[in-house]
Amino acid sequence: MAALIALDWGTSSLRGFLMDQDGKVLETRASRHGIQNLPASGPQGFEQAFVSMCGEWVERHHIQAAVACGMVGSAQGWREAPYVPCPADTHSLASQAVSVNAPLGVKIMIAPGLSYDPANGRPDVMRGEEIQIAGALGDDANTDSERLIVLPGTHSKWVEVKDGSIEAFHSYMTGELFSALRRATILGRLMPDGEKPAADVAAEAFARGIGLALESGPGDLAHQVFSARTLGLFGRMEHAALGDYLSGIVIGHELVSARNRFGARMTESVSLPVIGDGDLCARYVEGIRIVCGCAPILLGNTAPAGLHRFAAALGLFSSASFARASG
Amino acid sequence: MAALIALDWGTSSLRGFLMDQDGKVLETRASRHGIQNLPASGPQGFEQAFVSMCGEWVERHHIQAAVACGMVGSAQGWREAPYVPCPADTHSLASQAVSVNAPLGVKIMIAPGLSYDPANGRPDVMRGEEIQIAGALGDDANTDSERLIVLPGTHSKWVEVKDGSIEAFHSYMTGELFSALRRATILGRLMPDGEKPAADVAAEAFARGIGLALESGPGDLAHQVFSARTLGLFGRMEHAALGDYLSGIVIGHELVSARNRFGARMTESVSLPVIGDGDLCARYVEGIRIVCGCAPILLGNTAPAGLHRFAAALGLFSSASFARASG
Repeated sequence: MAALIALDWGTSSLRGFLMDQDGKVLETRASRHGIQNLPASGPQGFEQAFVSMCGEWVERHHIQAAVACGMVGSAQGWREAPYVPCPADTHSLASQAVSVNAPLGVKIMIAPGLSYDPANGRPDVMRGEEIQIAGALGDDANTDSERLIVLPGTHSKWVEVKDGSIEAFHSYMTGELFSALRRATILGRLMPDGEKPAADVAAEAFARGIGLALESGPGDLAHQVFSARTLGLFGRMEHAALGDYLSGIVIGHELVSARNRFGARMTESVSLPVIGDGDLCARYVEGIRIVCGCAPILLGNTAPAGLHRFAAALGLFSSASFARASG
Repeated sequence: MAALIALDWGTSSLRGFLMDQDGKVLETRASRHGIQNLPASGPQGFEQAFVSMCGEWVERHHIQAAVACGMVGSAQGWREAPYVPCPADTHSLASQAVSVNAPLGVKIMIAPGLSYDPANGRPDVMRGEEIQIAGALGDDANTDSERLIVLPGTHSKWVEVKDGSIEAFHSYMTGELFSALRRATILGRLMPDGEKPAADVAAEAFARGIGLALESGPGDLAHQVFSARTLGLFGRMEHAALGDYLSGIVIGHELVSARNRFGARMTESVSLPVIGDGDLCARYVEGIRIVCGCAPILLGNTAPAGLHRFAAALGLFSSASFARASG
């Protein structure tokens, strides 16, 4: 029986999940109403996007309990939720959640982000990934000792987990760096839009980029990426494969840096979990295989499971609102 | 007496120099008619930009000899000039120059670019810098044994010169990387346009960025640059200084990579020449001072001297056209 609406509300997309009390996903919806692409400005934009996606769920199932994670809780979101300092677990997230009164009598609990403040004085932040990690850890999180988890993305995260708690994490702007190099520098000029090389050509170009990263010294990136132009200029690489080559260089750099940082924890792990789905995660899996010689586990999208854990930690399934919702 | 028109014709600007036979610059003009900003499309754009800047020089001094360097010789230029493979000197450039018949009876000789094809199979190219280097080497170039020269820019070049000949060079896309990170990623959001910090605050932020590069391992760039956001988010760095900090990180990475590549040739040199002018070169001078403990020589703009040497190598000052021009 439908009991909860769970929203993964990011910058460029909104995904909604209708769940039962045990976290089973009954229905999934997706829209392009990310917080930077709302149907109206101000709070109305969020309200309209919510009603448009979830109004029918609310009315059909009389649901009043909802949870959300991601940029919806940022300074540019519906309501700002704080960054909770590490170490933090699902209960820390629940204790600092903020609520917003949505249309149709629904109260949405928005998850906070996380911050990590290492001794070097350069803090790190995440917003949205903490819920994906909660989903990856699952209910038996406390039985884990130490784990390293990777979340590829616009800003990839390498997350150190101990006893079900996020102890530390490290962001790499790799996805955004790749996009910026491709869209905003001369490198994009030789890369044809929408033209894909044969799969084996793409894989070879990607592996060649990873190989460059493997032999790189400190500071070499700005030199190495220039070859994504000259190899094309000199006819030594098919233009359609230059994007895969560049992707290999920048992802490879992240992986080499992570290998230096985590050492045996990364290279000897036979179960390094990679959270996410799609082409980007497949690239990380292949890159990790080349750099570390180990095959990571691709966990897929763990946000729905994490949102359910967050809702449970909030006590939504025993609260008055849930009693009303399921009554 | 005016004898030569020399043009430094790049992507975003056109600079013209009226010279006498000895290379003395008699007049200088500048316009925004770089090859991507011409007053008309096709060859007419180049012709109009040329007449607009140089027509009066041609008519007043009856000059028919002109030389040009830079992107005007690229595939998107007025006429494409080849890339001459290294090793190459001013005479190699002259031997592969291409000519274009400009309005008013002027023949412009366009300098070729240079290519370098190292054993690793990843070629490198330059177009315009080879003339600046010719200018830096001067007429007594053959008395030099070995030299390393730095040309900061959109694509910085580290150039190895031996006996007046360019033996090898290495590009770093540092300038374009900085612009792309600032304009096309989230990092720019906290950087206020046109707002400058106090000079000492800017210098400290830049030095802090260089310091990050100095302690970096392979592949760390995409992680380190994220701190140009979080230090602002956490109020640990004035937003107006974040751009200087980011500049320090990316320039520092280039310098650390170059130090690994060139070793003692870079760090023990008391006379590492830096070609160029303005704020960017001042940053490289300061960065080299921090990274290597040595003070490089800032040579300023050597393009006019290089264009004069190129013209001399072409034989323009003894040719019929020069005889006519000076007759």
